[in-house]
Amino acid sequence: MTRGRPRDPATDAAILTAALDLFIEHGIAGMSMEQVAKRAGVGKPTVYRRWSTKERLVADAVESHVSADIRWPTSDEPDDIRDHIRRNIAAAATTATDPKFRGLVAQIYGSAVSHPALMQTYWNHHIAPRRAAVLAMLRRAQDDGVVAADADLEVLVDMLAGAVTYRVLQPDPPTPRQMRRYLESAYRQVGLLT
Amino acid sequence: MTRGRPRDPATDAAILTAALDLFIEHGIAGMSMEQVAKRAGVGKPTVYRRWSTKERLVADAVESHVSADIRWPTSDEPDDIRDHIRRNIAAAATTATDPKFRGLVAQIYGSAVSHPALMQTYWNHHIAPRRAAVLAMLRRAQDDGVVAADADLEVLVDMLAGAVTYRVLQPDPPTPRQMRRYLESAYRQVGLLT
Repeated sequence: MTRGRPRDPATDAAILTAALDLFIEHGIAGMSMEQVAKRAGVGKPTVYRRWSTKERLVADAVESHVSADIRWPTSDEPDDIRDHIRRNIAAAATTATDPKFRGLVAQIYGSAVSHPALMQTYWNHHIAPRRAAVLAMLRRAQDDGVVAADADLEVLVDMLAGAVTYRVLQPDPPTPRQMRRYLESAYRQVGLLT
Repeated sequence: MTRGRPRDPATDAAILTAALDLFIEHGIAGMSMEQVAKRAGVGKPTVYRRWSTKERLVADAVESHVSADIRWPTSDEPDDIRDHIRRNIAAAATTATDPKFRGLVAQIYGSAVSHPALMQTYWNHHIAPRRAAVLAMLRRAQDDGVVAADADLEVLVDMLAGAVTYRVLQPDPPTPRQMRRYLESAYRQVGLLT
């Protein structure tokens, strides 16, 4: 970021939205700064004044989207763990089946090897906090004896999160209702639901 | 495919290899038929004579690669299920941590929403047979009482396969040895290992 002239928040927002949409449609390799500028209705220099590469721009676009638009369960300590898990599942089923989220996850996974910085950004800002919340639930369940004492909780989290992303990218994506039942099965498998 | 002149298998192989490499490096949206022709050392008409679109070409390239180069466990009925599972895990750990496989999976996932035909091809030729083999193991384990009678086996397969692909696309990919231990934890969780 250069520090020259003051920035216009509306212009920044338009650029970020254009970048996110182009990323979802075409992936990082299939989009250009020129297309972003055109779709946002600004000149190319306006984009470059703020972001030096499309990788940084897309990372910011992903970050602002996942922090603003996607509602995942919080990690607040709940009174009733079962209620908390039910709310978790309902929120995850809605988010995971949202077409925009599906497209976003696909492209981030797609760039994981060729553009690892994007996955790293997504990991730090989106995945890591959710992961911590699920790990906390699993630790509690392990203390209560419903999850095996010798289970590798990091692997269990991957099994839950991995199943969801894997399922939504399969050729026949689920409805929110199917996804809820799917999540109930997965949570039951690891001992988080009875 | 047009039927005009007889095809040269070596030329076809060079085109398929070039297409696969470009797909892994740049994804479907970031590659062109022109680049494929150039890398294969042939003229563009030679490529178009055989494949009318890059989507078809990449689908064939993925199919020929996964059927030729990647060794996954077979679905042969084993004498000893535990031995069979150990061999399964060793083979899966080697394949899943291969950089080329990692890049390929990333790009196929990446195009799952924007180019669903590629995921469908990969699903039919690569995933479906492996899925059937793991389902057969789970059914056997369910009959033996080690997997819960009411478990949704389709969800369990996704938890195993999803965890593996999720893990290898994470920012800090595992070594084959780490992957083997990871798979052992996951198999233990669903009841396929004691």
